[in-house]
Amino acid sequence: MKNHTLLTDFYQLTMMNGYLKNGIHNDVVVFDLFFRKNPCDNSYTIIAGIEQVIDYIENLSFNEEDIQYLRTLKLFDEVFLEELKNFKFTGSIYAVEEGSIMFPQEPVVRVLAPCFQAQLIETALLNIINFQSLIATKASRVCEAAGGDPVFEFGLRRAQGPDAGIYGARAAYIGGCAGTSNVLAGKMFNIPLSGTQAHSWIQKFDTELEAFRAYASIYPDSCLLLVDTYDTLKSGIPNAIKVFQELRAKGHEPLGIRIDSGDIAYLSKEARRLLRSAGFGNIKIVASSDLDEGTIHSLKMQGAEITGWGVGTNLITSKDCPALGGVYKLSAVEENGQLTPKIKISENPEKITNPGYKKVIRIYNEDGYAEADLIALDDEEIDTNKPLTIFHPLYTWKKKTFYNYSIRDMLVPVYVDGTLLYNRKTAEEIKGYTKKELSSLWPEYKRLNRPQLYKVDLSERLWNLKNDLVNKRRDGE
Amino acid sequence: MKNHTLLTDFYQLTMMNGYLKNGIHNDVVVFDLFFRKNPCDNSYTIIAGIEQVIDYIENLSFNEEDIQYLRTLKLFDEVFLEELKNFKFTGSIYAVEEGSIMFPQEPVVRVLAPCFQAQLIETALLNIINFQSLIATKASRVCEAAGGDPVFEFGLRRAQGPDAGIYGARAAYIGGCAGTSNVLAGKMFNIPLSGTQAHSWIQKFDTELEAFRAYASIYPDSCLLLVDTYDTLKSGIPNAIKVFQELRAKGHEPLGIRIDSGDIAYLSKEARRLLRSAGFGNIKIVASSDLDEGTIHSLKMQGAEITGWGVGTNLITSKDCPALGGVYKLSAVEENGQLTPKIKISENPEKITNPGYKKVIRIYNEDGYAEADLIALDDEEIDTNKPLTIFHPLYTWKKKTFYNYSIRDMLVPVYVDGTLLYNRKTAEEIKGYTKKELSSLWPEYKRLNRPQLYKVDLSERLWNLKNDLVNKRRDGE
Repeated sequence: MKNHTLLTDFYQLTMMNGYLKNGIHNDVVVFDLFFRKNPCDNSYTIIAGIEQVIDYIENLSFNEEDIQYLRTLKLFDEVFLEELKNFKFTGSIYAVEEGSIMFPQEPVVRVLAPCFQAQLIETALLNIINFQSLIATKASRVCEAAGGDPVFEFGLRRAQGPDAGIYGARAAYIGGCAGTSNVLAGKMFNIPLSGTQAHSWIQKFDTELEAFRAYASIYPDSCLLLVDTYDTLKSGIPNAIKVFQELRAKGHEPLGIRIDSGDIAYLSKEARRLLRSAGFGNIKIVASSDLDEGTIHSLKMQGAEITGWGVGTNLITSKDCPALGGVYKLSAVEENGQLTPKIKISENPEKITNPGYKKVIRIYNEDGYAEADLIALDDEEIDTNKPLTIFHPLYTWKKKTFYNYSIRDMLVPVYVDGTLLYNRKTAEEIKGYTKKELSSLWPEYKRLNRPQLYKVDLSERLWNLKNDLVNKRRDGE
Repeated sequence: MKNHTLLTDFYQLTMMNGYLKNGIHNDVVVFDLFFRKNPCDNSYTIIAGIEQVIDYIENLSFNEEDIQYLRTLKLFDEVFLEELKNFKFTGSIYAVEEGSIMFPQEPVVRVLAPCFQAQLIETALLNIINFQSLIATKASRVCEAAGGDPVFEFGLRRAQGPDAGIYGARAAYIGGCAGTSNVLAGKMFNIPLSGTQAHSWIQKFDTELEAFRAYASIYPDSCLLLVDTYDTLKSGIPNAIKVFQELRAKGHEPLGIRIDSGDIAYLSKEARRLLRSAGFGNIKIVASSDLDEGTIHSLKMQGAEITGWGVGTNLITSKDCPALGGVYKLSAVEENGQLTPKIKISENPEKITNPGYKKVIRIYNEDGYAEADLIALDDEEIDTNKPLTIFHPLYTWKKKTFYNYSIRDMLVPVYVDGTLLYNRKTAEEIKGYTKKELSSLWPEYKRLNRPQLYKVDLSERLWNLKNDLVNKRRDGE
């Protein structure tokens, strides 16, 4: 992990200097990191990147070169630069467990720290979590469309830079992908690798048949052939069958074929027919041609004979929605040892923030299905022996009462007073956890088009606090 | 720069091993890196990332940890791993100068190297050039819409990971942006930084006026105030005017205001009116609210009183088109000391590659305007004392003859036989070069909507070669 201490917006530094000069840099504040809208019209977002946030915090340190650079800007004095030299994160961060399923408006990371520190880390936290959560969520949609077939992340060449390829592969794996083509991501996160040969391999030989034979001779037990370099049905499949027969004669079973262009529905059905009549009916057919969840869904509906999906550009960039709009908003300021709730008003009611030091409670029914979430103040207690009534924050007459339910506090400690408490997991463990999270959602929330919206309500105390602050602010200013 | 040797697709390694086992790993091949479509319906693409390609090549080396990881995959033998340990790039790379304006189908990077080497580097080259070229081009569109007003890149928090923020800021600067909020990019590439304060600064104080005063007291000569935290016209502007008057009384001139939400057209005009009547008619008004080239164009048409533009998400992700589809295709193979042209056929005629070892020639008229490009074989010579007739590769009756013209070879040596020959430039120099490149394009190519398409033709020799190979392949297979 690179030192990303300067990976921040310049205004964080001008503000930090401003806090210092005003003598308020040690004032403790609370920031919530949350998003307002799920990506890709999905009904949920898988939160990923928590462990990279930890890597970032652990490596926070302004080195001599950083300080020297800032000095050249001629805006900051030595007192401020000295403070940066001694920078150390001493605050507390609560966050959801990596791989958790979360919903709009819910704090997914909560920072309580001196404003000097909380301000610096805003940009990197958003950068890391916005991207990985976006790709994990997109991957989850693609895997949902594939309906259990393995999906392989193939997007490195079109990813938005090296990190996007690396951390995108990680997020895609967490979101449900079976593997990646990205060797570095495979190494860093122990993600299964996938890949055989490209068109250039086929072209390098005088004929396609020669190219197939050369590949089969080296990888007799994992022979998967790319059949669309010249003509899939007239050349690729007949040549593949020839080589598969030769392999079988030597006691090896071929793995399959890959189709990378053309009408995948038609070609895959024809390919399957030809392969079946040659005695290779059960081999894998992998498709990889500008796929996304919509195309995969459509191909499945058309009866395409595909058993595995290689998904590139549209997954690694989340092409139809390439940014998750996570924000980081001040929600409280410590004054005389007490946290005073703060609010940000907007003409757009959706953009009015939820004030105070808050938590997120998930309500499960007896069968373990998630029924609703409640954003509440951190010191609120819920007695699960009593019925719990929640209400819509806007249409307050929309109510729901739970009788037999259990609850779960979604935010867990990552740092407390600067000490790391989070237990890291392997990418595979996080992927397993996400799978479990998804199994707690009704299918209606998981469908690709127009999913049911999950309920996220405010506790009565929080709702009252918010309304009081809005009214005070609108009357007062 | 990290060591990105493993930043490659797994199939590159399985193919490299395959070439080695077949004893053909030292066969020299030619790959062209090109794209088929400009991003965002633009008529040109600014090529960026060449210097990061060099960083990548310079750092290519499989270390012990990489080898050990590959060993665990149980697919490769020690002979192959030994070959990797000794890996060194010894080939030749020609590329356009960074910041050049290029068009679909044109080789922008040309690699001539043993196939063992040329294959490994494909993925990283595409990753680096696809992303930076995309963002440089998008930035150029945004700056075109801003019509000379400074545009600031503010997207780090929404970028697709740290590298996307860092190299995206670099590309945006090359494409025409005046600065970035990204401090690390500022340090790495000496890009001017921009940034003042966020809503959290305003919220941190008891009142907006207090927050403005605190900021002005520290930055009296660069005081730019964010006016939309509570109510832009009722609170933000009046408070800003108060503080600006206090500043002026102390002999300082305020810099301006920033509006980050609401109806920018209306608010900016009203803000200008209020500021003017208070004697601050000439201060800057910066807008930053989900902007892109379309919105900026529309705001300008509406007479919005904006003098500078902060552009985030839509620029750093190129939201409407988040990937440039650059590809890397085999175009020739050395056989008995001769380069034999190779072609990749496709049912889609657009996807048939141009064979052979090629160059790109730009034709300029007497006034220095670019008139057309010609893709030709590398050994073709053009005598500029004679007229030059070019023809459309599909509608061959569409011809054009040039009489007084000059030509320029777009590909320059980056590596020759493994030796680096490229002269690195500062980001500012590249930005200057791109500006010059843009000035050689007629305005009709630069308009945002439905621009004129620039002519890219094939030389007669290349056209004949391509047709011969297509016919041979279609008849033969």
